[in-house]
Amino acid sequence: MKKESLYLKIAHIIEEQIVSGTMQLGDKLPSLRVVQKMYHVSINTVKQAFLELESRSLIESRPRSGYFVSKIAQRRLSLPSVGRLQASDNEHDQEDLIDKVYNSLKKENLTQFSLGVPAQSMLPIAKLNKGIVDVIRKLDDGGTSYEPAQGSINLRRSIAKWSMEFEGQLTEDDLVTTSGAMNAIFNCLLAVTKPGDTIAMETPVYFGTIQIAKSLGLHVIEIPSHPISGIDMDALKKVISKIDVCCFTANFSNPLGSLMPEENKIELVKMLTERNIPLIEDDLYGNLYFGTNRPKPCKAFDEAGIVMWCGSFSKTLAPGYRVGWVAPGKFKKKIIRQKLLQTISTPVLYQEVIADFMEHGRYDHHLQNFRNKLYSNCFQYQRAIEEYFPDNTKISDPQGGFVLWLELDKRIDTASLFDTAIRQNISFAPGRMFTLQDRYHNCMRLNFALEWNERIHTDLKRLGTIVKNAF
Amino acid sequence: MKKESLYLKIAHIIEEQIVSGTMQLGDKLPSLRVVQKMYHVSINTVKQAFLELESRSLIESRPRSGYFVSKIAQRRLSLPSVGRLQASDNEHDQEDLIDKVYNSLKKENLTQFSLGVPAQSMLPIAKLNKGIVDVIRKLDDGGTSYEPAQGSINLRRSIAKWSMEFEGQLTEDDLVTTSGAMNAIFNCLLAVTKPGDTIAMETPVYFGTIQIAKSLGLHVIEIPSHPISGIDMDALKKVISKIDVCCFTANFSNPLGSLMPEENKIELVKMLTERNIPLIEDDLYGNLYFGTNRPKPCKAFDEAGIVMWCGSFSKTLAPGYRVGWVAPGKFKKKIIRQKLLQTISTPVLYQEVIADFMEHGRYDHHLQNFRNKLYSNCFQYQRAIEEYFPDNTKISDPQGGFVLWLELDKRIDTASLFDTAIRQNISFAPGRMFTLQDRYHNCMRLNFALEWNERIHTDLKRLGTIVKNAF
Repeated sequence: MKKESLYLKIAHIIEEQIVSGTMQLGDKLPSLRVVQKMYHVSINTVKQAFLELESRSLIESRPRSGYFVSKIAQRRLSLPSVGRLQASDNEHDQEDLIDKVYNSLKKENLTQFSLGVPAQSMLPIAKLNKGIVDVIRKLDDGGTSYEPAQGSINLRRSIAKWSMEFEGQLTEDDLVTTSGAMNAIFNCLLAVTKPGDTIAMETPVYFGTIQIAKSLGLHVIEIPSHPISGIDMDALKKVISKIDVCCFTANFSNPLGSLMPEENKIELVKMLTERNIPLIEDDLYGNLYFGTNRPKPCKAFDEAGIVMWCGSFSKTLAPGYRVGWVAPGKFKKKIIRQKLLQTISTPVLYQEVIADFMEHGRYDHHLQNFRNKLYSNCFQYQRAIEEYFPDNTKISDPQGGFVLWLELDKRIDTASLFDTAIRQNISFAPGRMFTLQDRYHNCMRLNFALEWNERIHTDLKRLGTIVKNAF
Repeated sequence: MKKESLYLKIAHIIEEQIVSGTMQLGDKLPSLRVVQKMYHVSINTVKQAFLELESRSLIESRPRSGYFVSKIAQRRLSLPSVGRLQASDNEHDQEDLIDKVYNSLKKENLTQFSLGVPAQSMLPIAKLNKGIVDVIRKLDDGGTSYEPAQGSINLRRSIAKWSMEFEGQLTEDDLVTTSGAMNAIFNCLLAVTKPGDTIAMETPVYFGTIQIAKSLGLHVIEIPSHPISGIDMDALKKVISKIDVCCFTANFSNPLGSLMPEENKIELVKMLTERNIPLIEDDLYGNLYFGTNRPKPCKAFDEAGIVMWCGSFSKTLAPGYRVGWVAPGKFKKKIIRQKLLQTISTPVLYQEVIADFMEHGRYDHHLQNFRNKLYSNCFQYQRAIEEYFPDNTKISDPQGGFVLWLELDKRIDTASLFDTAIRQNISFAPGRMFTLQDRYHNCMRLNFALEWNERIHTDLKRLGTIVKNAF
């Protein structure tokens, strides 16, 4: 056998397994070394076989994790549609629905697809607890003193250092720590808006951000967002003259999971800089990328200081710690002053624990495992939904984060479907929560940061049945 | 010797010691048993002698601590004058001065009389650290999960239980935990005001509260406050029709240390209830009473739910923990919603540590020691100031808390005096920080929650010399 035909032969065998369904969407391929032994060939031959399969989009590589059967190879369901451009003239109240979803969480034995919160088993709790004990011993005052309002210098330094990886070009002096990303966004809005101002957001968009904007008396314009590439730049341009501030999630928007291409980020920052419109960038999912690199935030292209880059450790490490940050650009002084007035300082302990976690490489290590689990979960969920949901179901293809967005048959109202699902101990987030407009009735968001197991599999199947029986 | 003359004789000996200065302001008297042995008399005779001295205000008893040489017996300096009623038409910016004072704190080896923060040595740091380790072991999730927005049920239950001591009549359901008292006040203001509203505050008043009110676009009316009895009720009545909300510290106002008599509290709540004006009650010093009992908050007299009772553990236990609470009365739902929007939840760990501390009686025990130290410090400071400051110095007589308010010669500007003091490593809070009006130039606030020692004594002497040389 010639060397060329050898690698093609191996590639062909694997292709057969994929097409026949022996190996399924998201399955991990055996390692190069295992395949080498299996066929008694050189490691280079196996590499060539894998490259061949990858070039045909049948498999895809994940850094430091190996090769997986590609989603693209088998995708059967369509992407969700893009929402229309709408301002908040005829708003619908989401509060009751949000309260209903939150209240349902008290139910015992519930499968929690509704909130964007990772399962406990996904978090390095024992290591964090050890960190707390270590840090307490190190702090003279046990964390009883106020820290300066800007926040822990150690944490700010760790975030700044790590932001250099994606060319953030920040120093510790550019950052202010906050009580999570929501608190960062709240303070940014408080700093740059006044009641009656108009804010642009993606649509669909995280309900918390809408609610904060409304509570501050802002008008919301919902900008169409593509499930893959995010904000529709042309739509934004059409209304830019009406806008006082933007709040976007360029990296893995919630709930769509879209990722703005770098050229769009550059264009966006340029356009907003010219008009002196602040951009509040909610980058709390940015570390949970499924690609090879951490995508840059818009902040990386900000020269005028108009981008207020917000992030947190709530989605990746410890929601309950309430530790986040903002790099507020030219609004820094105002943000620090607000933090001082509102709460004097943030608790020092958790900030030091996280700084220590980052400094010793434990955060990177955890993120790598966490991303792999999420990537694999995303496959499993998509596969289950393709199998158990109606054929006209549309489903997002997130490139990071841990939520899926589903668009169901137009006749379905997920707000009433929710009641049925809750009776069966399954919760999800109805689509109407993600807009102020009269839309997304037939959509839902699912959290996939849960440990994949037979129960989750069965619950997705049961949810599919509920959807099928809904009309 | 007849029994009567015996106790009078002993009383006379002690009186001599006080008048001659052998025993000084604030000194603790020997215990009943020690005096009994000294004079070979019955314990009842000693008791009678002490009662005699007490009835003449030469000594005073402190619960569970014994008898002390009374302040009243030897008071030489006058009380500070009462500020005039003023609205904020011609406001003076305090921001620069506040920044200056904060920035000065970075200086090494500084005696910190300026901020209202207890010295580390006054706090039970080792016990709190042990509490943290214990609590982490108990929490399944190590505190990584969000808690419900209302806050830790254990902490709310402990606060409610303890509030029953002063007839707070609250249940855990009436309370919401916050990131310290400032955060509670911020949220109360956000809940019950809109820009342009008018707020009534004491004068002089803590600069943080003024700054928060200004940041929310409120007009401030400063109500005269007596150094002993607090808010001047007649002055308040004069302007009540213009007022949308009140924010008062009925128990040990900052900086005066005044305590509103109970009948004034009752009248205040009644008057505000009739007019449906919310009262934000900042009760963060309430546990640091020098009398026999914890004074009741205005909240104890609130039947209509108009009082929003705010407190924290920042002044008594651990400033850096950022744990406080509010009992928001009829505004509860709004406050919980705001907390959810602004920060989702507060960190669970510190709340559980404090709940545990309260539950096991460690908080009460600590408070008792802390109060005794503060009471004794207050004496020492007053005595040093009487000795080393000019005779026309006026000085407050706080009945709790840990700040003193000094009114100096009219020719003195404490803002420039501050620069001189800082050069000598002494910081204090200049009076102008405590008003929006053009006044209190010749006043200063001193923190006495520092461990009393020779250095503090010397620094008060040096500060006295600075004042004497100022004109």
